[in-house]
Amino acid sequence: MSLRGGLDLGGTKIQAIVFDTGDERVLGQARRPTPQEGGPAAVTGALVEALQEATQGAGLVPERLAGVGVGSPGETDSAQGTVAHASNLPDWDAPFALAAALSERFGAPVSIGNDVDVATQAEFQLGAGRSASSLLGVFWGTGVGGGLVFEGQPWSGRGAAGEIGHMVIKRDGARCPCGRRGCMEAYAGRRAMEERARLLTDRGRKTELFRIMRERGRSNLSSGVWARALSRGDELASEVVERAVGALGAGIASAVNLLDIELVVIGGGLGVRFGEPMAERIFAAMRPHLFFDDRPPVVRVAALGDLGGAIGAALLSERLSPAPAPA
Amino acid sequence: MSLRGGLDLGGTKIQAIVFDTGDERVLGQARRPTPQEGGPAAVTGALVEALQEATQGAGLVPERLAGVGVGSPGETDSAQGTVAHASNLPDWDAPFALAAALSERFGAPVSIGNDVDVATQAEFQLGAGRSASSLLGVFWGTGVGGGLVFEGQPWSGRGAAGEIGHMVIKRDGARCPCGRRGCMEAYAGRRAMEERARLLTDRGRKTELFRIMRERGRSNLSSGVWARALSRGDELASEVVERAVGALGAGIASAVNLLDIELVVIGGGLGVRFGEPMAERIFAAMRPHLFFDDRPPVVRVAALGDLGGAIGAALLSERLSPAPAPA
Repeated sequence: MSLRGGLDLGGTKIQAIVFDTGDERVLGQARRPTPQEGGPAAVTGALVEALQEATQGAGLVPERLAGVGVGSPGETDSAQGTVAHASNLPDWDAPFALAAALSERFGAPVSIGNDVDVATQAEFQLGAGRSASSLLGVFWGTGVGGGLVFEGQPWSGRGAAGEIGHMVIKRDGARCPCGRRGCMEAYAGRRAMEERARLLTDRGRKTELFRIMRERGRSNLSSGVWARALSRGDELASEVVERAVGALGAGIASAVNLLDIELVVIGGGLGVRFGEPMAERIFAAMRPHLFFDDRPPVVRVAALGDLGGAIGAALLSERLSPAPAPA
Repeated sequence: MSLRGGLDLGGTKIQAIVFDTGDERVLGQARRPTPQEGGPAAVTGALVEALQEATQGAGLVPERLAGVGVGSPGETDSAQGTVAHASNLPDWDAPFALAAALSERFGAPVSIGNDVDVATQAEFQLGAGRSASSLLGVFWGTGVGGGLVFEGQPWSGRGAAGEIGHMVIKRDGARCPCGRRGCMEAYAGRRAMEERARLLTDRGRKTELFRIMRERGRSNLSSGVWARALSRGDELASEVVERAVGALGAGIASAVNLLDIELVVIGGGLGVRFGEPMAERIFAAMRPHLFFDDRPPVVRVAALGDLGGAIGAALLSERLSPAPAPA
């Protein structure tokens, strides 16, 4: 039995788990909002609290953990244990030695990896990609991230592969939050979708999206808000989601034409929330663009759901700091 | 010393070489037009003649060859030695056992591979990618094909990876020769470029392209015709090439955003003919779309030029049918 801590650090929330990598079970979990000010120190504090709560839930203390993994946005350096340029995190531009800061608090080795990469690896080892040898993970949330596994090995290029959200699907098209034009994310990212909904509302269109948002005490259009609006038949919401699905179809099909990969796993906040019916719509939107359309890849929803990132972080810890063999 | 025959089977021409894989030298070469009728039998005959001429040029007989490789369009099956669905070759839809037919004539083992894959592998082993561990090959000719090497290993997915020409760069954009809309090849493939030039001419625009074509006794706009028109300052030709370069920039940048690959090698008839200055223009067209624009990949012209495909075929022969160890 090897107990590992897994921390999924997101722009809005932190997910912590205690994971038994032997029988692949989540023994405890906790969730915290990501501090929106206070920089790396505040985020480190929230990560510590979240993991302490998760270990308590499992009836343990953090010192029992053989190691802790963190899946983080921004530029992660596994060798140095640092995170830099995390634009979704508060005041986090310079490299911060997150592994060292956490390891001191936990009394266990801490490994850092890219959030999308660890979530992809988790789906590959334990989730929707269990029986596949290669896969493309598409994480549809605030942005659209991608993860790649080729013949069982994660592929990160020179360290920054997977920016599927910034594949160009419409030259001179919509402005992307990244500042460029025509990226897939400019149509399909939740941030871009919200901007689109606000624009259409400003133009006089009606929607329940923002009322649902306020009812739920949200300050932006979360995945749950979009799902609720769709279930109520909100026309503007349907239209914006349809636009996103079309963009995802073109972008994912492009990646498949390039890589001829056997499996596409759709995860992320929106991907998991919308589930199988939306994955089928994405598949349908891919088909007209597939060069070999008689043998498309399989498209599946991420099987580990919201916990995939944290499970992937725990698996990363095991890979990068294996427990010493018993004497 | 291991002498191998290499055959690059194209839609318009066949290139044959005799290659010494020991000191990496081309000992003889010959070129033949690809028969435009007569089906696989006629093409087989032309391949035999071309290799016989190349071996004669090297002062040899084909029986001296340790093996022969063929880089072919269409669906190639290395295990079966067959080629199917080769739409650029005459009457070649059903699988044809090309390896068996050639091997009988040459008295040497024959290996079949995809034309773009073998050309990519040649650039990786002996050409512009010699010092790289991973690369993306972009073959800019009648169509636009792609080849991938990750950490020294060729990547072909489920057998059909590399269709970079059919990545979508403009949803609902120009009609592609493949029948879909908005593919990179719809702007950048030589066939699409010729269609564009004809369309603009029909609309009353002036160009020297078709006069140069006739002067050279061509029936279509070859790479040489395009190069000549550009060197004469032909405005329409410049405009169509600029459109192609913009499309290549967006499509290649998309692939780089997904894969974060260190090196892009530009080959193919147009790529080799236009050379370094055009590779620089493609690089400039990529930059605005690169997500990590502070560390772009290196972009280079294929170093093996027109012979890359045939050299790659010879290398394939060595890989798939190594010479028996001396007794």
